[in-house]
Amino acid sequence: MSTSNLDAVFNPRSIAIVGVSTKASAEQFGGGAYLQSMINCGFKGPLYPVNPKGGEVMGLKVYPNVRDIPGPVDYVISAIPASGTLQLTKDCVAKGVKAMHFFTSGFSELGKGEGIALEREILALARDHGMRIVGPNCMGVYCPKSGVSFLADVTSESGAVGAICQSGGNAIYLVREAARRGVRFSKVISYGNASDVNATDLMDYMADDPETGIIMAYIEGVRDGPRFMKALERAARRKPVIVLKVGITESGARAAASHTGSLAGADRVWDGVLEQVNAVRVATIEEWIDMAVTFSFFPKPVGRRVALLGLGGGATVLASDEATKEGLVIPGFPEDLRRRATEVVGAEAGTIIDNPMDLSAEAWRVGYYPILKLFAEYKGIDLSIVHLSVGLIARPPAMHAEIWNKLLDDIVRAEKDFGKPIVVVIQMVTLAEHYAWMLEAREKCYRAGIATYNSIRHASRSGNRLLRYYEKRDARGRSGS
Amino acid sequence: MSTSNLDAVFNPRSIAIVGVSTKASAEQFGGGAYLQSMINCGFKGPLYPVNPKGGEVMGLKVYPNVRDIPGPVDYVISAIPASGTLQLTKDCVAKGVKAMHFFTSGFSELGKGEGIALEREILALARDHGMRIVGPNCMGVYCPKSGVSFLADVTSESGAVGAICQSGGNAIYLVREAARRGVRFSKVISYGNASDVNATDLMDYMADDPETGIIMAYIEGVRDGPRFMKALERAARRKPVIVLKVGITESGARAAASHTGSLAGADRVWDGVLEQVNAVRVATIEEWIDMAVTFSFFPKPVGRRVALLGLGGGATVLASDEATKEGLVIPGFPEDLRRRATEVVGAEAGTIIDNPMDLSAEAWRVGYYPILKLFAEYKGIDLSIVHLSVGLIARPPAMHAEIWNKLLDDIVRAEKDFGKPIVVVIQMVTLAEHYAWMLEAREKCYRAGIATYNSIRHASRSGNRLLRYYEKRDARGRSGS
Repeated sequence: MSTSNLDAVFNPRSIAIVGVSTKASAEQFGGGAYLQSMINCGFKGPLYPVNPKGGEVMGLKVYPNVRDIPGPVDYVISAIPASGTLQLTKDCVAKGVKAMHFFTSGFSELGKGEGIALEREILALARDHGMRIVGPNCMGVYCPKSGVSFLADVTSESGAVGAICQSGGNAIYLVREAARRGVRFSKVISYGNASDVNATDLMDYMADDPETGIIMAYIEGVRDGPRFMKALERAARRKPVIVLKVGITESGARAAASHTGSLAGADRVWDGVLEQVNAVRVATIEEWIDMAVTFSFFPKPVGRRVALLGLGGGATVLASDEATKEGLVIPGFPEDLRRRATEVVGAEAGTIIDNPMDLSAEAWRVGYYPILKLFAEYKGIDLSIVHLSVGLIARPPAMHAEIWNKLLDDIVRAEKDFGKPIVVVIQMVTLAEHYAWMLEAREKCYRAGIATYNSIRHASRSGNRLLRYYEKRDARGRSGS
Repeated sequence: MSTSNLDAVFNPRSIAIVGVSTKASAEQFGGGAYLQSMINCGFKGPLYPVNPKGGEVMGLKVYPNVRDIPGPVDYVISAIPASGTLQLTKDCVAKGVKAMHFFTSGFSELGKGEGIALEREILALARDHGMRIVGPNCMGVYCPKSGVSFLADVTSESGAVGAICQSGGNAIYLVREAARRGVRFSKVISYGNASDVNATDLMDYMADDPETGIIMAYIEGVRDGPRFMKALERAARRKPVIVLKVGITESGARAAASHTGSLAGADRVWDGVLEQVNAVRVATIEEWIDMAVTFSFFPKPVGRRVALLGLGGGATVLASDEATKEGLVIPGFPEDLRRRATEVVGAEAGTIIDNPMDLSAEAWRVGYYPILKLFAEYKGIDLSIVHLSVGLIARPPAMHAEIWNKLLDDIVRAEKDFGKPIVVVIQMVTLAEHYAWMLEAREKCYRAGIATYNSIRHASRSGNRLLRYYEKRDARGRSGS
């Protein structure tokens, strides 16, 4: 089967959602939430809520059974208890449905005979009729271009990142958090127990998909290791692949088995394979999202020499330590550049005029633009990292937004005018007002093509990983391997 | 000198602030901000704003010179440019002031003859008259019990944590962020260039201070290494000492020299000394705050065996990996406990009934209380870590607070009723509404004596460090060293 009929999963022309409560607005979980999500995401084709009681919900007629739906149905979402899923599958086969997604759980992941047998029976029925199965026990698909979504509060803007994410909760978090840092997705799929559609199929599909330029994979385990590795190698030759492999400890592997029935596999085997195919391995979900941000916004970098600019002497010392520990280089500035920067700033007290640079006492007056101009002209650095350490300013919180917005405008203007890469770190957020401002600031940055991170450590680690990715790729290109 | 007259720094009976703008409400930085901070923090003694122009500000008479102030003045804050500080020091000596704090910068940290000479001259004058100097180039003191503060938006509640923090910005961030996780301070001091009052004096003072039970130190460098190490060893024998040593890389050391004129010292020397005296060394400012939370809330722990409880299968797999990597143990539950937990939950689909435990599909109905009761009764675990992974729930954001509050109430009630330690991790925050809820949730937890962390990694690392601290201390106790 592999990738056949996966188009019906990502680009269905019509969708039936089975198990929509008729009081769906109050009980927006399960079927009702899917219906709301498709509406919010702008699904263009017909949407058919299904419930034996019939009636109407969100302005749509409710059908008692998928077989009662008048037109053709490409894709069916099951949000009913497991006990009704075999009959539903039979109804879908009879209706000529192309793919089913089971949000429903209670199958092989429970590790018991009954659930395992039911999952197998449904799969056999589907295979006999060429119907694909997503799941069971998963969130399914977010594909903004086609208007399919598992979440009501997401953007309907499309982008280049394709995400294969076994876990539904982590897929939701990924979409929410990455979107707020400017990542836009071609398609995201949570595939749970992977009874049919699995990591290998999806890796093959994403590798071929012209709308996907960057592949993210969260993997608890794979069943057919050699086949998956082949798909991974093929994908990684074409596109950056960022892998978060979990279940790497004994208790984590036990949890993965209970969660999606996965066999986690030895961690060092994964390490070796990912290194060999030049997939970028990350250790945490934050780093996973960081790399999606990094590949989405960064051009191919030219080097590790960074100018650090920010406010706060202590924050500046910490920033230097962290960037250096993560493999970047913070070269001291030559005397001539220090002299010119001092002229621009016009004062020395309460500042550090070197690399790293701290403009604490003077930034409000001088702004960042003229400094970033000097950085852009100086050939000794490849990149600037500007840190906005929001929580360490003594001024009353209400005054912060005004100050930070001025500095942010300077950064956006400098990136546009000078073309030398700038990365923004927004850190030390401690108040709800600051958090709201941070979300605005992130959006202002990504709309200007600027990547944002939550810490110097995360920004530096991501930058270093990006460099390593290209260094390894180029070395392979040269050696012809 | 050492600790003599440091009481006048932390518990002055009267304060003059020199360099308060007469339009202070609009220009709340420098002197005006200090005045506002003392008022907000409830300073009981007289406050004397000083400005040659005289007038009135925030309802207080402004004096042209400290010598014009009618009553005695214990403590003077200089918020004027460096050029006027020598004359101010002379005036303070004439007035019989006990301690001066220089918010003013532009001294030895610039690395130039003039600033170095001025700093020395002021110090010599102060020493001749037994007056102490805090700084220059720093934020000074936050001592809620006496109503002294460098920040207007802080709590006036006191606590057991004393913090020695060379950097002012980091001191501000520390106070803001740690306070929101329930840490309360005996005193916090940012001491900048340390021309007089230095890390050694402060370590000695904090070691003796009956109001300080836990010592935090952020250090860029110390001048007299052997004397500091002796003070550190003495303090660490009496109280937990948590050290964030920065300037550990070449560029970080360069920044530390420009920031506070510090010589950072070789990192591996620090490592050895801190290990030897059983001070807890941390690597980041987040971990530093984590340990203040940990020592503030945790009783002496009995072991590393943790029960993990949360929502989200993927989040649960990640949590197991991270807790295990950080040195904790997540033992699988015996069959009997799993059976009883299954009875309590009443369903298996969409859950993981083991350790780690995931109640995704059922938590809303079952709550956490009956599960935490089982954990409390089970002798095989020492501690529960409950994770509220806010951003991965598919329900609309507006419904979240209600759901989370119910679970949080269960946690607080269980901790109270059963007495077995519970730690709360609030993570995956992606929306401003969630952030505001997180702040409320943290407060609800710390008011009930429960520690909160931002990730499983941070919670586990902190717990492991706490255990190591007590293990080493007990081993020394036994060997009599």
